[in-house]
Amino acid sequence: MVTTRLPSAGFSITIRIAVTADASSIGRLTTCVGEAGAIVTALDVVDSDPTRVLVDLTCDTADAAHADQVVKQLEEQDGVDVRKVSDRTFLLHLGGKIEVSSKVALRNRDELSRAYTPGVARVCMAIAENPADARRLTIKRNTVAVVSDGSAVLGLGNIGPAAAMPVMEGKAALFKRFGGVDAWPVVLDTQDTDEIVAIVKAIAPAYGGINLEDIAAPRCFEIEARLKELLDIPVFHDDQHGTAICVLAALTNALRVVGKQMQDVKVVVSGAGAAGTAIMKLLMRQGVGDIIAYDRKGALHRGMPDLNESMQWLADHTNKENYSGDLPGAIAGADVFIGVSAPNLLTGDDIARMAEKSIVFAMANPDPEVDPREARKHAAIVATGRSDQPNQINNVLAFPGVFRGMLDAAAEEFTEEMALAAARAIADVVGEDKLNPTVIVPSVFDPRVTPAVAAAIRAVVKGGPIPANPAALPESELDKAPETTF
Amino acid sequence: MVTTRLPSAGFSITIRIAVTADASSIGRLTTCVGEAGAIVTALDVVDSDPTRVLVDLTCDTADAAHADQVVKQLEEQDGVDVRKVSDRTFLLHLGGKIEVSSKVALRNRDELSRAYTPGVARVCMAIAENPADARRLTIKRNTVAVVSDGSAVLGLGNIGPAAAMPVMEGKAALFKRFGGVDAWPVVLDTQDTDEIVAIVKAIAPAYGGINLEDIAAPRCFEIEARLKELLDIPVFHDDQHGTAICVLAALTNALRVVGKQMQDVKVVVSGAGAAGTAIMKLLMRQGVGDIIAYDRKGALHRGMPDLNESMQWLADHTNKENYSGDLPGAIAGADVFIGVSAPNLLTGDDIARMAEKSIVFAMANPDPEVDPREARKHAAIVATGRSDQPNQINNVLAFPGVFRGMLDAAAEEFTEEMALAAARAIADVVGEDKLNPTVIVPSVFDPRVTPAVAAAIRAVVKGGPIPANPAALPESELDKAPETTF
Repeated sequence: MVTTRLPSAGFSITIRIAVTADASSIGRLTTCVGEAGAIVTALDVVDSDPTRVLVDLTCDTADAAHADQVVKQLEEQDGVDVRKVSDRTFLLHLGGKIEVSSKVALRNRDELSRAYTPGVARVCMAIAENPADARRLTIKRNTVAVVSDGSAVLGLGNIGPAAAMPVMEGKAALFKRFGGVDAWPVVLDTQDTDEIVAIVKAIAPAYGGINLEDIAAPRCFEIEARLKELLDIPVFHDDQHGTAICVLAALTNALRVVGKQMQDVKVVVSGAGAAGTAIMKLLMRQGVGDIIAYDRKGALHRGMPDLNESMQWLADHTNKENYSGDLPGAIAGADVFIGVSAPNLLTGDDIARMAEKSIVFAMANPDPEVDPREARKHAAIVATGRSDQPNQINNVLAFPGVFRGMLDAAAEEFTEEMALAAARAIADVVGEDKLNPTVIVPSVFDPRVTPAVAAAIRAVVKGGPIPANPAALPESELDKAPETTF
Repeated sequence: MVTTRLPSAGFSITIRIAVTADASSIGRLTTCVGEAGAIVTALDVVDSDPTRVLVDLTCDTADAAHADQVVKQLEEQDGVDVRKVSDRTFLLHLGGKIEVSSKVALRNRDELSRAYTPGVARVCMAIAENPADARRLTIKRNTVAVVSDGSAVLGLGNIGPAAAMPVMEGKAALFKRFGGVDAWPVVLDTQDTDEIVAIVKAIAPAYGGINLEDIAAPRCFEIEARLKELLDIPVFHDDQHGTAICVLAALTNALRVVGKQMQDVKVVVSGAGAAGTAIMKLLMRQGVGDIIAYDRKGALHRGMPDLNESMQWLADHTNKENYSGDLPGAIAGADVFIGVSAPNLLTGDDIARMAEKSIVFAMANPDPEVDPREARKHAAIVATGRSDQPNQINNVLAFPGVFRGMLDAAAEEFTEEMALAAARAIADVVGEDKLNPTVIVPSVFDPRVTPAVAAAIRAVVKGGPIPANPAALPESELDKAPETTF
C-alpha cells in the first residue's frame, strides 16, 4: 500500500543528449520520457550540425530511482547518445543558498572610517551605555537565529548538524524571501539539552529572535521552555508553533466550509511529537473539546505506563472516554483526522468510517498517512503537506510573518495569543467568497499572507485591536524622511 | 603631552542650517567651521526662498566634543539658525551593516521545491552519507565565524557582546568587501574559557574557518590553542596573527628602505598582550634575534615574579641581556620600536636616542605611543595604525586574503608558514621601485593585496612554490562551464 509518488521539481534532472537529426528524433525523445512516467519541462538545443543535434532535456521525475530509469530508457533508444545527466536540485545547492552582504559600500577611506575604526568605536560605546540601542544600531532588530541540532531533520531523522545545513539555509532563504527577515543557520554539534540551552543563551545578544528547528521531541520542549525563561527575545519552535498555527488556520476554514464548530468536533491526531503536541494544545486553546492523541505506543490514555512528561500531559488532558484501541478504531465517527506521523497508516475504507463531512489533514512527508486520492473519495476536505496536491499546509504561511511582526514590535516573547492571532490572520486571507473544499489555505505565494500575519502579531504585542484589513509593514523609523522645508 | 587629534570621517557630522540669503552668508558658515578647526566636506542646498536658504553642511570633526564646539560656534553667528545635527557615523549604523541574502530567487513552486522540501532532503542525505560534501553543497566553503566575547574591543576594553556587535558587523563587511568571504558575527554572552571553547566547537560544522576577535589576553591564547586541537578548520585570531603578519610585512619593507637585516636589528616591543606576543613570535621566527618585550610590569626579564604563561615564555626567550629598566632606556640604541600598547609613552627625545635610521611603528589606537609628528623628526621611518598618517599598518591588508586562501584550499589549520608567506606577499606588493620611507605597505584599497595573500596561502597549503606574480583567484569548480559541443 505504498503511495505512488508523482514527478516533482524536487527530482528534476537535465539530460544532455545527442541524437540524429531526422524529423521525428526529438519527438521520440519526449515520447520516451513521457512513457517512462516523467514530465518534460524544457527542451533546449545546445548545438547542431547537418546530421545531429545536441539537446538539454529537462524533466521532473518521481525520485532518484525513477530518474535512473528514465535515463536508462533513453539510452536504449536507437540513435540516442546520453552525454551527461545533471541533477538540478544539486546544482542549485552548489556553494550553499545564502550569503552575507554588506549594506555599506566601503568604497573609500571615508566609508571605512565610519563603518569600522575609528568611527565605529563611538557606536560601540553608545550601546555599552544604553544596551537598548543594540536594536537601533546593529542587525539585532531584523535578525533571527535558526537553531538546530540536526536530531529530527524533515522526515530524515537524526542526521546531525552538517547534513542539516541545507534545510537551515533553505529556511534562512525563505525567511528573507517571504518575511524580509535576516535569518542565520546555527547548527550545533551537540545534542545535550543543557549545552544547547547554554549555547543559545550565549549567542542571543546578536539576535532579535530564536527559531528552533528540527530538534527531536521531547528534548525540544525542555529547550524551548528553558530558553523562554532565560531570554528577553522570542523563542519559537517552528515544528511546534509554526505547524500548529497553520493547522489551526486550515481547520478554521475547513470547518467554515463544512459548517461545523470547533467546540463540537471530535479530532484524532496521529503523532504526539513536537508538531502533534503543539497542534493539540492550540486546538484545545481554541475550544476543541474532544481530542484523541495517537502515537507509536497507541492512543494516549490515562493509566498508560512509561510516558514522557509531554505525553503524560496529553494522556491526562485529552481522550475524554479514555479510548485505548487502534487508530482506525479511533477515527471511526471522528470529524477530523490530523496526521503528523508516518506514511500509510490508514486506508480509504478507514476514512469512509469517519463522521459525515469529515476533514482529513494527512501531513506526513513525503508520503501522507493516507493516500490523498483514496481519502478524497470519502472525506469532504483533504489537505496534505505536499506541494503537488490541493490544500498544502505549509509552515511558510506562518513563520515569516510571525517573526516579521515580532521583530517590528520588538516582542520579548512568543505567546499563545500570537499563535491564535496568526492562525486567524492566515485563515482570513482566504475570503468567504473564495472558500471551498480545495481552497482552505492561501497559496504560499499570496503576497497578502505575511503582512496579515505580521500585523496580527504586532497588534497582540501592542495590545491594540487586530486590524481586519491587514496594514502593510509599518514605516520603519529608519525610513522616515527628514524634514526638508523651513 | 596629548596628541592633538585631527578631524576625520569617523567624526563627520551634517548640520542643517537656515541662513539669511545675502551674498556672503554661506561663505561665513564655511569660514566659521574652518576657524573652529573642522573640515567642510560637503554643502548641499535643501530649500530656499527669496530671503533665506536651508543648507546641509557636512564636516569632519576631531571628536564628539569638537563637534559640539563647532555647532556652538555656528549658533553664535548672526542670522544663523541651526535646525538639526546628524551624526553620519550613527546614520550609517542604523539597522546594522550586514544582511543575509538568498542566492536562490524562490520565485515559484519549482524553485521552492528544489531549494527546500522536498528536493532539499536528497542534498541532506548526500552530506549525511559523505560529510566532505558539506563543502560542496552548503555555505561552509566560503563562510567564517567572527567570534568575540566582547572582552577587549578595539581600545575600549571589556564592553560585552552587544556593544561589540558594531565592530564584528564591520569586520564581516570588510571580509566581504576585500576577500569575498561570507563572515558572520558570533558574539558571546560569556567570558568563560571552557564555555567559549565548547560553543565554538559546537557551532563549527557550518563554517570553513574561525576568526577570533577582540578576546582579552591571556584567555585568547588558551582558547585558540584548544580550538586548534579540537577543530578541523583553521582558527585565526586576528588581533594576534593578523597584526603580526602586517607588522612583519611593514618591517620587511622598512628594513629594505634603511638597508638593515632582520637578524641584525634590536627590536623593542611595547605591549605583551595578544598582538605584541604574536608579533614577537613571528619576528623571532623570521630571524630577529634581539627583542625586548615591555609591558605594564616593565621589561619582561628572567626572574620577574607572577608572570602569566605567555609572558613567562617571553621573559625566557627574549631580552638577551635581561634588561630590567624603563621603556625610554630600552629603546636607547634600538633599531626598531613597535608599540601595541597605550598612548603617549614616549617623546621625540626618546626616539632621538634610538640607533641611526631607526624605525618606529607606534600603533596604539587612536593615540599612538609617540606623537608621529615628533617621531618623524628623529626616526627614518614612522608608521601608525591611523588612517590619517602615512604608513598605516592595518589588518585589512591580511585577514581577507588569509581566509580567502584558506577557504579556497580547504585548509584545516592556520600555520606560522602561512603567516610568513602572507607577510612576504603583502610586502612584495610594494615594488622595489615604489618603496620609500612613507610607503612601506600597500594601500588597503590596492586591489592586488588580497589576491597576492590568498595565492601565497594556497601555495603553502598545497605545498607548491609561492607564485611570484600572484595569480587571480582560482576558477572555482562552480564556474567551470559545462561542455557545450559534440
